[in-house]
Amino acid sequence: MQAARLSGIVPPLSTPMTETFEIDIPSLEKLITFQLDAGVHGLFALGSTSEVAFLTDAQRATVLDVVVRCVAGQVPVLAGTIDMTTTRVIEHARAAEKARADALVVTAPFYTRIGQAEIKAHFRQVHEAVDLPIFAYDIPVAVHSKLERSTVLELAEQQIISGLKDSSGDEANFRGLVMAQAAHPDFSVFTGSELLADVALFMGASGVVPGLGNVDPVGYVRLYEAAHRGDWVAARQEQERLYRLFDIVNVGLRRMAIGSSAMGAFKTALQLRGIIATNVVGRPQLRLNDDEVAQVRRALVAANLL
Amino acid sequence: MQAARLSGIVPPLSTPMTETFEIDIPSLEKLITFQLDAGVHGLFALGSTSEVAFLTDAQRATVLDVVVRCVAGQVPVLAGTIDMTTTRVIEHARAAEKARADALVVTAPFYTRIGQAEIKAHFRQVHEAVDLPIFAYDIPVAVHSKLERSTVLELAEQQIISGLKDSSGDEANFRGLVMAQAAHPDFSVFTGSELLADVALFMGASGVVPGLGNVDPVGYVRLYEAAHRGDWVAARQEQERLYRLFDIVNVGLRRMAIGSSAMGAFKTALQLRGIIATNVVGRPQLRLNDDEVAQVRRALVAANLL
Amino acid sequence: MQAARLSGIVPPLSTPMTETFEIDIPSLEKLITFQLDAGVHGLFALGSTSEVAFLTDAQRATVLDVVVRCVAGQVPVLAGTIDMTTTRVIEHARAAEKARADALVVTAPFYTRIGQAEIKAHFRQVHEAVDLPIFAYDIPVAVHSKLERSTVLELAEQQIISGLKDSSGDEANFRGLVMAQAAHPDFSVFTGSELLADVALFMGASGVVPGLGNVDPVGYVRLYEAAHRGDWVAARQEQERLYRLFDIVNVGLRRMAIGSSAMGAFKTALQLRGIIATNVVGRPQLRLNDDEVAQVRRALVAANLL
Amino acid sequence: MQAARLSGIVPPLSTPMTETFEIDIPSLEKLITFQLDAGVHGLFALGSTSEVAFLTDAQRATVLDVVVRCVAGQVPVLAGTIDMTTTRVIEHARAAEKARADALVVTAPFYTRIGQAEIKAHFRQVHEAVDLPIFAYDIPVAVHSKLERSTVLELAEQQIISGLKDSSGDEANFRGLVMAQAAHPDFSVFTGSELLADVALFMGASGVVPGLGNVDPVGYVRLYEAAHRGDWVAARQEQERLYRLFDIVNVGLRRMAIGSSAMGAFKTALQLRGIIATNVVGRPQLRLNDDEVAQVRRALVAANLL
Repeated sequence: MQAARLSGIVPPLSTPMTETFEIDIPSLEKLITFQLDAGVHGLFALGSTSEVAFLTDAQRATVLDVVVRCVAGQVPVLAGTIDMTTTRVIEHARAAEKARADALVVTAPFYTRIGQAEIKAHFRQVHEAVDLPIFAYDIPVAVHSKLERSTVLELAEQQIISGLKDSSGDEANFRGLVMAQAAHPDFSVFTGSELLADVALFMGASGVVPGLGNVDPVGYVRLYEAAHRGDWVAARQEQERLYRLFDIVNVGLRRMAIGSSAMGAFKTALQLRGIIATNVVGRPQLRLNDDEVAQVRRALVAANLL
Repeated sequence: MQAARLSGIVPPLSTPMTETFEIDIPSLEKLITFQLDAGVHGLFALGSTSEVAFLTDAQRATVLDVVVRCVAGQVPVLAGTIDMTTTRVIEHARAAEKARADALVVTAPFYTRIGQAEIKAHFRQVHEAVDLPIFAYDIPVAVHSKLERSTVLELAEQQIISGLKDSSGDEANFRGLVMAQAAHPDFSVFTGSELLADVALFMGASGVVPGLGNVDPVGYVRLYEAAHRGDWVAARQEQERLYRLFDIVNVGLRRMAIGSSAMGAFKTALQLRGIIATNVVGRPQLRLNDDEVAQVRRALVAANLL
Repeated sequence: MQAARLSGIVPPLSTPMTETFEIDIPSLEKLITFQLDAGVHGLFALGSTSEVAFLTDAQRATVLDVVVRCVAGQVPVLAGTIDMTTTRVIEHARAAEKARADALVVTAPFYTRIGQAEIKAHFRQVHEAVDLPIFAYDIPVAVHSKLERSTVLELAEQQIISGLKDSSGDEANFRGLVMAQAAHPDFSVFTGSELLADVALFMGASGVVPGLGNVDPVGYVRLYEAAHRGDWVAARQEQERLYRLFDIVNVGLRRMAIGSSAMGAFKTALQLRGIIATNVVGRPQLRLNDDEVAQVRRALVAANLL
Repeated sequence: MQAARLSGIVPPLSTPMTETFEIDIPSLEKLITFQLDAGVHGLFALGSTSEVAFLTDAQRATVLDVVVRCVAGQVPVLAGTIDMTTTRVIEHARAAEKARADALVVTAPFYTRIGQAEIKAHFRQVHEAVDLPIFAYDIPVAVHSKLERSTVLELAEQQIISGLKDSSGDEANFRGLVMAQAAHPDFSVFTGSELLADVALFMGASGVVPGLGNVDPVGYVRLYEAAHRGDWVAARQEQERLYRLFDIVNVGLRRMAIGSSAMGAFKTALQLRGIIATNVVGRPQLRLNDDEVAQVRRALVAANLL
């Protein structure tokens, strides 16, 4: 991490669960191996797609221990520290430090009503409390505030943050950050978009953190490699295939919200591909039913993954 | 709790902090005594105004132990279980049960994207896990989803929830719940509004959970008693005085967001009134400066509280 | 208008339409008579409930001519000037002046992205262009910006606006305006809420602009008179009956949006009560079907209106 | 239009105004010539950047007459029909037809609360009323509802709309429309983004409708031509220069909202470049002051446009 700026495909690792909502460690180990075999450039544990919001602190510790142990230094491990405010986040950050994660991923505070001044204070206070590099995680759909571009750039200049994961959906603003990155060679800018990975890389992003990368890491690595060698047409073709596959996230929308549907679809796809044992999702999310599972299966066949 | 429906003034207790962001236990004890002496009808620990989002689990346990011990059964103690999703909330609920709180206050899940189906599952799963009565806490400004009226009524009819604290700001919808309450005599409906307590009681609400009640519990108790005897003119006069006092929450808005400003104003007022030792707020909130403190002082003088 | 501050019940008049979407003048005349017979204190033509957004400029002129002619000075006539920006609003304002309306009702600009500075300029420029008193109309659900309290009070102090119609749903802020009104005896503050008319009057509002007043003006006048004599229990009882009746606005929600459903319900109720000839709504709104009409009929029976 | 699908750079033409807020016809003529000389592939009159919301119907007619006359068939002229609901939009559509525009640009209804059912009815009814091809205009920031992808595709399949201008900022959804376009060879998909023109074209979009194209049409044409020949690196370089230039839209944000600031910046740049006579913006927008004008000048110099 210190030597070179992080780049490439860094999937936010799904967290397999047993029927009783415990961490399914053998499945998690298998998923990690699956990802490493595909050539991913890093792994992000305890992110939104990891259902971090659904895990107790003890479960988070278990996940992180398994990931660090299985990855064994082959690629960097980023650890999410998702919680409402600074003191709670620092507790997670210290746990991640102890578990020997390589970097932290920190969102803006949530639940409470804050502004950019409080957001800056938050990142500074977390930075002072731990020795790990920090990636800022811009995800307004979850935390309901935006990391403004000036906030990100100020924190980058002061070397409080080492990178950004942008899941804001605001590609125009993202491009401004990517363009500013030229002046900050040690600063990494990742997109969280599964659907615009090729254009993010085209604009100059360091890499991609795709939830769908759990299901098809080979596809995203192929996309990244095409982009890396400047073969934009090949990158786009790969992206378009993945775009169509991503439609599985909508499979449950008649009965449930997008959160349940998307988490369920990723886990169902992993189960169908033989990587994990169940498609159990964290409570209170609803679980996909037989009909919805069948739709995921058809999508996997169409994407040449089954 | 079991015998009679909860009603009256139930302030969400501020959490006094030391300069190092620890719980200031002597100040908390003094604040509880101040509230009980004023005649409040219950106390809500670990709510939004308690800065529950800023407390570690260990600090939450400390607060709840102090509150239950000091209240000593004189009035019911409600305990917030504020966290992102079900399993985490159940952990807080069990801690509250162990600490011998009288009831739980549970919000919709947050951070994750859920709908009414997931919200219903959430309340059912928490209800199954603990033996305490549950108040649903509708606070879209924090959790960014709304407990729809049909959701609340379904959960009430199924006796999964025993009451509601409405901090939604949607008074028209609130009235529908109050009117429906007539058919559910064991169901309590509280408003969280400091500014419309008289009209909430006029519409038939069970009571009020006013953050500003930390600063002037005597005022809210007086308002409630006027309403209780049908003296709406007196209730309104008291409310109008409190309305003007509430303006202190805006004191810091030039430098900070409303969360920092409001928490800081309540704590500053309590400090100026001699109840708590500092106006420290949880990180990463900003602290009021001398000029802002002076404005709070003037407002307290104007409200005859200094 | 000049002599005394406007107060009381001022329904926003529905605009009856023929099967070919033209103004149904005989129905409109009958509706006006129905309203005047009920004792309303004013009429608001060309408001949101009048479907002003669905009328051409020629149709707006027709409506206003009919209303001014039929009312014939018995009560004040307010004319909406709903349009996107200043120059267009001034055109409508001049038409209203020519038609001899008694006052204008003006919203914030919409479609364009404006702030409070532009809103203030807008009201000033309209005020300079015409001689009629102006009511500011705060309706964020339509125009997607809020008239902030400081904006309203500044415009009132400068006598640019003579009153406010608040359809914002923010009752706490509304109360601040009502309380400030004490210092501005010539300034009128109306609520647009059908569901909180009693509490608005209890808080000190000048009056009510209830869309549902089209259907049951007698009920709202009775509510107002009870409030006026301080009989809050009678006012609340009337309000609770009207609250239940208001549920008709949701009758079409399985097929259409709330706009279509509410406009259709009001017109269907008026048709069923024999006041207007059709329940045609402005394009592209959907029209209620037989089943939905039957539900409206049942609600009218339950409210003793059929 | 009939023969071939529209593609390329189609700037939304600014509307120059005199000091008294009238259309400045000589400036408009000069601006049109400036655009045609730059090689734009079409012109969009009466769009959001044209300040259509600030023009009376008579002014709209004047603008359209000037544009059609000056363009004289060299490129297609698209005419905005921006208004609240169907009947009003049809009036504008018929005026555009009479003025011999080549196509209409139609938004979702606004001011009123509608859903996708009403949106579909709206486009169908406009389509039935006029003979011109219709471009759907997705601009949630102005109309506050979204044209959902399924709505757009249904209307395209039924040949009710001939194309889409997407100013939604939702690039992931936009890509889905572009990919679906493959099955609808006569359907054109344009982005309204000034900042992501290269990536929109890379994804397969038909063209771009850039407000900033008023100021630097040569730049956008150069970008389009690079994209057209597959020289993505050149397209990106041009885009990055234009990205930096676009920052002029923020020049007034300390005093005014983004609408005033952006319209003022475009007009100031055109004035500084000698194309139009004033930087007057439609009421109630605020006008840029000397300091803000100086900032625009510096940006033009930096972009090699002065």
